[in-house]
Amino acid sequence: MIKKNNIGIFIFNDVDILDFSGPYEVFSRTRLVAGLESRLSEETSPFKVFTVSEQKKTITVSGGLKITADYNFANSPNIDILLVPGGMGTRSLVESETTIEWIKNIANIASTVTSVCTGSLLLAKAGLLKNKKATTHWGALSLLKSISASTKVVSNERVVKDGVITSAGVSSGIDMAFTVVSMICGEDVAYDTAKYIEYQRSVKVVSN
Amino acid sequence: MIKKNNIGIFIFNDVDILDFSGPYEVFSRTRLVAGLESRLSEETSPFKVFTVSEQKKTITVSGGLKITADYNFANSPNIDILLVPGGMGTRSLVESETTIEWIKNIANIASTVTSVCTGSLLLAKAGLLKNKKATTHWGALSLLKSISASTKVVSNERVVKDGVITSAGVSSGIDMAFTVVSMICGEDVAYDTAKYIEYQRSVKVVSN
Repeated sequence: MIKKNNIGIFIFNDVDILDFSGPYEVFSRTRLVAGLESRLSEETSPFKVFTVSEQKKTITVSGGLKITADYNFANSPNIDILLVPGGMGTRSLVESETTIEWIKNIANIASTVTSVCTGSLLLAKAGLLKNKKATTHWGALSLLKSISASTKVVSNERVVKDGVITSAGVSSGIDMAFTVVSMICGEDVAYDTAKYIEYQRSVKVVSN
Repeated sequence: MIKKNNIGIFIFNDVDILDFSGPYEVFSRTRLVAGLESRLSEETSPFKVFTVSEQKKTITVSGGLKITADYNFANSPNIDILLVPGGMGTRSLVESETTIEWIKNIANIASTVTSVCTGSLLLAKAGLLKNKKATTHWGALSLLKSISASTKVVSNERVVKDGVITSAGVSSGIDMAFTVVSMICGEDVAYDTAKYIEYQRSVKVVSN
C-alpha cells in the first residue's frame, strides 16, 4: 500500500464551490498508474483528501449547496498538504483569530501550503506570504497587498510558487492542484490525470 | 426582478464532484451585469440552481464528499434546464427505471436538457439521444453507442449540441455550462462570467 499524502481542505460558509471542488477532483482522481482501470479503486491513489471546518459540520458554499465537513479543527487528522480556498467567506475570516491561528499551526507542520483565489488573504493574514511572491483573484490583488505589504503581488498568472503555492481566481485552483500533483508524483502522473478529467491545463508556473 | 431559469442538477451516489460543481459554479456566478459588484447579490442572476436526488438527502460524491440534496423527485420545483452529470454512479443508474422515467418526464417539459461526462448514458437510456449527435467521457464512447445504437457518437469534442447538449469528460461540463449561458444570456454575459471565475474557455461547439 502506498503511503498517502493527507490533503486537508479548509471549508467555511461562503467558500466558493469551484475553489475547493476543482482541486478536490484533481487530487481524488490522481492515480500513480495511468488509464481508466486504476481509477476504480484507491489502491494507487497517492492522496487522501478530506475537508476540515472550524467547528460546524454543515457548511453552505457559494450558490447555496450544503456540504458536510469530514473533520473540525479539534479532530482533524495530520495534514501534509493544506489547501485554503477562497470565496466571500474569507472577508470575515481574516478577522477570525481562531482560523488564522489554525492556519499558522498547520503551516508549521505541513509540507506544502496552497491557496486558491482569495484563500491567499488568509495566508497573508497568517504571515505566510511575507516577502514572497503570491497571487489571488484579480478583484482582490490590492486587498492582498493591503494585508501583507511586503508580498510581491503577481497579477495575470494562474499559479505562483514561492515556498507557498498560491493561485489566481476560482478555476485556476485546478491548475494549482496539477502543479502539486506534478511536484509530488511527477509530470507523467499529472498529464495522465488531466487526460482522465479532460482538463486543458495551463502549465505555466511563476516561481521565485 | 428578473424571471430566473430554474436549473435542476440531478445528483446521486458516486456522482463525479467536478461534473456537477463546475456547471454549478458557472450558473450560480452568472450575472447579467458585468464586473465584481453584481456578484454580491442575486439581483441580476438569471439562474436559480438547485440539486435533486431520487430520494436520499445525503449524497456521497466521488472522493467521499457528502452533500445535501435540496430536493427529491417528489418535491422538486419546476425544472427549466436539466443537468445530468456523470460519474461511476451512472453505471447502476442506467438500470434504474425510476431514474430513467424521471429524466424522460423532466425532458418533456424542460426547455433545455444537458449532460456532462457519463451523464449522457442516462439520457441515452431515456431515449433522448436517438438519431442525435452526442458525446461522453472518452472512456465511455463505445458504451454510449451500445446503449443508443442510432446515436452519432462524437469523439474529441468538448460540447455537442443537437437538441440535447452533451459534453465530454468531467471538466468539459464547464464549457457546456458556458454554452448554455451564451445561448440564454448572450456571449457578453458568458465572457464576463468566465473572466470572473478566470476560466479559459474552449468555445468550440459541435452542432447538428
